[in-house]
Amino acid sequence: MSGDAVGVGLIGLGTIGTGVAKVLAGNASVITQRLGFPLRLVRIADLDLETDRGIDLEGIRFDSDATGLIEDPEVSIVVELIGGYDVARRFTLQAIDRGKHVVTANKALLAKHGKEIFEAAAKRGVDVAFEASVGGGIPILRSMREGLAANRILSLHGIMNGTTNYVLTEMEKTGEAFEVVLKRAQDLGYAEADPSFDVDGVDAAHKLTLLVAMAYGAELTDADIPTEGIRGLTPLDFDAAAEFGYRIKLLGIAKRHEGPDGIERIEARVHPTMIPRESLLASVDGAMNAIAVNGDAVGPTLFYGAGAGEMPTASAVVADLMEIAREIRRGSAGRVAPLSYVPAHLERKPLVPPGESASRCYLVFSADDRPGVLGQIASVLGEHGISIQSVIQQGRARSATAVPVVVLTHPAVEASVRSAIAEIDALPEVTAATRLVRIEEDL
Amino acid sequence: MSGDAVGVGLIGLGTIGTGVAKVLAGNASVITQRLGFPLRLVRIADLDLETDRGIDLEGIRFDSDATGLIEDPEVSIVVELIGGYDVARRFTLQAIDRGKHVVTANKALLAKHGKEIFEAAAKRGVDVAFEASVGGGIPILRSMREGLAANRILSLHGIMNGTTNYVLTEMEKTGEAFEVVLKRAQDLGYAEADPSFDVDGVDAAHKLTLLVAMAYGAELTDADIPTEGIRGLTPLDFDAAAEFGYRIKLLGIAKRHEGPDGIERIEARVHPTMIPRESLLASVDGAMNAIAVNGDAVGPTLFYGAGAGEMPTASAVVADLMEIAREIRRGSAGRVAPLSYVPAHLERKPLVPPGESASRCYLVFSADDRPGVLGQIASVLGEHGISIQSVIQQGRARSATAVPVVVLTHPAVEASVRSAIAEIDALPEVTAATRLVRIEEDL
Repeated sequence: MSGDAVGVGLIGLGTIGTGVAKVLAGNASVITQRLGFPLRLVRIADLDLETDRGIDLEGIRFDSDATGLIEDPEVSIVVELIGGYDVARRFTLQAIDRGKHVVTANKALLAKHGKEIFEAAAKRGVDVAFEASVGGGIPILRSMREGLAANRILSLHGIMNGTTNYVLTEMEKTGEAFEVVLKRAQDLGYAEADPSFDVDGVDAAHKLTLLVAMAYGAELTDADIPTEGIRGLTPLDFDAAAEFGYRIKLLGIAKRHEGPDGIERIEARVHPTMIPRESLLASVDGAMNAIAVNGDAVGPTLFYGAGAGEMPTASAVVADLMEIAREIRRGSAGRVAPLSYVPAHLERKPLVPPGESASRCYLVFSADDRPGVLGQIASVLGEHGISIQSVIQQGRARSATAVPVVVLTHPAVEASVRSAIAEIDALPEVTAATRLVRIEEDL
Repeated sequence: MSGDAVGVGLIGLGTIGTGVAKVLAGNASVITQRLGFPLRLVRIADLDLETDRGIDLEGIRFDSDATGLIEDPEVSIVVELIGGYDVARRFTLQAIDRGKHVVTANKALLAKHGKEIFEAAAKRGVDVAFEASVGGGIPILRSMREGLAANRILSLHGIMNGTTNYVLTEMEKTGEAFEVVLKRAQDLGYAEADPSFDVDGVDAAHKLTLLVAMAYGAELTDADIPTEGIRGLTPLDFDAAAEFGYRIKLLGIAKRHEGPDGIERIEARVHPTMIPRESLLASVDGAMNAIAVNGDAVGPTLFYGAGAGEMPTASAVVADLMEIAREIRRGSAGRVAPLSYVPAHLERKPLVPPGESASRCYLVFSADDRPGVLGQIASVLGEHGISIQSVIQQGRARSATAVPVVVLTHPAVEASVRSAIAEIDALPEVTAATRLVRIEEDL
């Protein structure tokens, strides 16, 4: 079990890439003890050869020649950490074509081009590993793929984007508006200058795509996932949530339904969600991530940790390198199908049409404070089969004539909720678009 | 990747064994889709052939002949679920000797005879898997062994015994005494008739032994782990904990220390512990388990789920069966060293002597309510270098002359605390043995 090193090539020496170099150097002894042989970073490619990353690159070839790195016979595993779609896709496919195994943290790439990449890898007999792409350092993909592999996954609920969780935590704590908190998060470096990828739920949808593939062997892309971000939330929503015993989190949600025909249908969506304050998931604050997975045998589980950042993400990348290196030393690959199901079974599964999913809803109506408005709203809801659980009508606003009416519903079908909202928003007394936050109770 | 089934033999058809049979039957389709071939339960051995377990055993040979099962050429993997030490050890070694892989949930067996069993397995080239032995259905061992393999594990804190966590949760909630809650737990089936294995921390120490082996490649047995149970806790302790912002949990704790000589030393202990109320671990209630692991790269993580029970434990056993079955179909075994470090590196590592560990302490002194007693206690603590952070002296008790004095200390060395307590307990004014609960802040 001892012997020569397995060679690693790293494309992209940004934050995560630097973390990978640090872990490989700093924890070389423990990595070697666990593997029985060393992992060696032999080559790095990046366009920026100038910036000092504060790491010792002695003995490592460092240039801008990614293709040369891929072709280098000393490189057995290529780590793709450049992000984005086109160039990352090209290098990844090129590496696979040259028979190199690939480790990536690029959920966007896999959510868009996963099918092409996994098929190419299967054909060429190489591994593609991507633990770092969901939940940062949390070994959630490995746990779905192996630890919970005996289960039918009934549901999963994940806080998978640290930026939005930080913003939501701050909004709740300070009572400040979204824009104010976002600005501060940007100043602190917790949010990007263009935050849309995070705050609009796109990043969470990419990650959910991978989790759903892992959980159900279902091929889907982020285009299949109805996605709502957190821009619409107001301080009122956090106050109301607290009053009802909830906290608001941006969740990626997937559920398994089995029809009377025995056919499995998958429901997947990303949106801000009210969840019971006492649930473990509700206690996940700041930039941390957690994924709650409910399996038919194991019951409720939760996996918590840093969802991003240099060292946590590097922890996951190096775990993947170790797994693949073991396979290389054993002269094999493809031990576990990358998406948990053997390729022949990774298929497009029936999805629950977005309009058919059902949940309890928190609704905020903005209406002129005239007698009868609440009655009108209630009748429209009733006509659409939506039953009201409780109502808070704020005392008459001091200076405004419009008051928010907060309604909690019993479980209601999405399409009915949408129609009812459209009808209500067309009422002359309604002064602003109705806000909707879905509620999940079973966590 | 498809083809003939891998045959499984099950020794022990109790609660967990029945769960394993249920998962293998009920989730056969998802297991087959993930593996690319079926797992087949071909044979069961148990002394009790009469009890109806409510499962369909058609096509499965069921008798009391464990040796016959082990010898059966159709059985490639033996699942040992009889518990206890001697018979379990004999069957396990016998199975290994016959070249069969073994899956077990028996932490007691591994904590006592792990060295012998793992050495025999390594020699014979077979796998021994035991995910179910720690944290029930939580894939914590897999996560330590692979998901977090790139990390030096700085610390781990685990709620690893559901019975004690249930008792502690109830004591806190009801204010009732230990004996009252234990009796109810026994009536409800949450605690055994003889609860000592659980409430004295023995079970947690067995599990910690395995986690420490996994985390540090350190060979140790439960005899190396200072262990205290929860029998001594009183309602006062829960009130005081709440007042100071803590909750009380029975934790298995392991920490890595690195001396100035660069030598790694491991600290491991099991005892009731006060932890910050707002920590995620403090929110783990009832019979649930959770293990918080802090790695040098990944930072804080937490793994939560059911730590026991028929189906959660079966989930872990079947995950192990799937992992080994994959290896069998690939014509190999021993992919990852069972204790994470390759055998050559599983060694007795230096332990931190129990007296040298340090923590903040909660101390309850019972003393006659005479002027000067607190002063006396404070001076003894001071003489031993123990510095007081805060004191609560309860108002004079109505009918008693003895009042409890509650002291929170700054971090203090265990040996000094022990000496100080011995000296204080010898004071004539002290009416009962001093109680000590250690505090952990960094979770």
